[in-house]
Amino acid sequence: MSDARPYKVALVQMACGDDAQANLKTAVACTQEAAGKGAKVVCLPELFRTRYFCQKEDAKIFDLAETLPGESTQALAKVAKAKKVVVVVPVFEKRAPGLYHNSLAVLDADGSLAGTYRKMHIPDDPQFYEKFYFAPGDLGFKTFATRAGKIGTLICWDQWYPEAARLTALQGAEILFYPTAIGWLSADKNTEGPAQREAWRTVQRGHAVANGVYVAAVNRVGHEPGGGGKNGGLTFWGSTFLCDPQGVVLAEAPADKEAILYGEVDPARIEEVRRGWPFLRDRRVDAFQDLTRRFID
Amino acid sequence: MSDARPYKVALVQMACGDDAQANLKTAVACTQEAAGKGAKVVCLPELFRTRYFCQKEDAKIFDLAETLPGESTQALAKVAKAKKVVVVVPVFEKRAPGLYHNSLAVLDADGSLAGTYRKMHIPDDPQFYEKFYFAPGDLGFKTFATRAGKIGTLICWDQWYPEAARLTALQGAEILFYPTAIGWLSADKNTEGPAQREAWRTVQRGHAVANGVYVAAVNRVGHEPGGGGKNGGLTFWGSTFLCDPQGVVLAEAPADKEAILYGEVDPARIEEVRRGWPFLRDRRVDAFQDLTRRFID
Repeated sequence: MSDARPYKVALVQMACGDDAQANLKTAVACTQEAAGKGAKVVCLPELFRTRYFCQKEDAKIFDLAETLPGESTQALAKVAKAKKVVVVVPVFEKRAPGLYHNSLAVLDADGSLAGTYRKMHIPDDPQFYEKFYFAPGDLGFKTFATRAGKIGTLICWDQWYPEAARLTALQGAEILFYPTAIGWLSADKNTEGPAQREAWRTVQRGHAVANGVYVAAVNRVGHEPGGGGKNGGLTFWGSTFLCDPQGVVLAEAPADKEAILYGEVDPARIEEVRRGWPFLRDRRVDAFQDLTRRFID
Repeated sequence: MSDARPYKVALVQMACGDDAQANLKTAVACTQEAAGKGAKVVCLPELFRTRYFCQKEDAKIFDLAETLPGESTQALAKVAKAKKVVVVVPVFEKRAPGLYHNSLAVLDADGSLAGTYRKMHIPDDPQFYEKFYFAPGDLGFKTFATRAGKIGTLICWDQWYPEAARLTALQGAEILFYPTAIGWLSADKNTEGPAQREAWRTVQRGHAVANGVYVAAVNRVGHEPGGGGKNGGLTFWGSTFLCDPQGVVLAEAPADKEAILYGEVDPARIEEVRRGWPFLRDRRVDAFQDLTRRFID
């Protein structure tokens, strides 16, 4: 069996307000608290420094971006080093004048930068106008060998793509972290809301099953006003969860409250589940070439 | 919106006994009954002509194979033509001396052969010794434009592979049919059973969500004795189900009884769901090349 040890992870479900410094302070405090409770990896939600600004398109908003490394990673690297904890830090990344990404840094447990990931799949839907703000990632899919364990990172819209989960898991990830900002539009919260959230849970639990890995979705929570007019804002649905390599939900946060969720990643459990159902052995890699096509007409 | 009409499908959950003629008779009767109730597509379970013989390895068992087209397809083609119904007919296919496949035929609503599919992913686990019996499929992933609608077909172990679902859906399938023979080993039915069945449901509902297609899993039911010794046989878990393009289960059969399950496939609902969550638009087809690798070391 694997000689890797189990490790505790913490998923920070937070509300994000107008004050970027206050949001950073909350993230630092939650990371410290989680490390104090034994977490070896802490994951923060997508774009946690700000409101989810993609509800409208406004070029002034690019002022909110920061460099990577930059203010957020510096503040959290101090915690990572002091508490010997790995931290997944989502950042609105300013890469060059006029070039921005929806990114994250993985800080290792000594405070060093283990690496970065740039969101590969960029959505664009009413009140989720991300294609205006973010260039698609160009670093590919990533797994990082940290002092705690091998962790794969993806961001929000990536969570709907089996290809993204697979390519990350094939690099040896024991857990896929999905920092997220997903919520309901006011217009269809009541009619479509439950089915939307259940689809979101299901597809990610499906990635866990198909790949034999742990999956953690880390969402923000709370209502954020929209851009005026008919835009009634977004209610982020929280529901941060951790599931095991068989898709069993181990821990789940409420839909409407901040929370730090804890759970354990056990590499021996991954080995056990994959021996029982050895999907990786039988993939028809000789027949997958057309996955690089948009559609097969 | 799409101008294709909704159509009714029927999923035949049956027990399969020792008598191949009796099993065929049951399949014919169920297909007739389903067509009489308005089904435009009927799907039978994997290897329905026989017991699930892969519980042991015995070369004499190859005698059970038949040609394709052959006895099963001829009998069901008569029903297809008479009742104007599309039928998915799983067959233990004898292709050449010493060369066998786990296959299916799609019979169009005029009784003609719309095409065949050969199971691409072949399992091999205790009491599921399929690699002994079946050569891996060499026809690739398939969608068939039938008189009822565009249907994709996969078989059992394929259901764990997101790549297989994707490559079938990308050909325009409105529904993925998974004829199946999956059950519990007596040894771990009580301890592992519920989690196994839930993982099976979840990964397939995940395919529905990720691809915006209907998914139908069509399983056999009942206990079948094993090969003697410690082999306590298999209890097939039934639980045949149909889910919609958002992963919502529309109909589900019991775990322990024969049943014909009915549901509707509505192409307009596929269009609606995909407009809401346009995953196909954003796939990073430029970054998927490594899906043809076994692992990324």
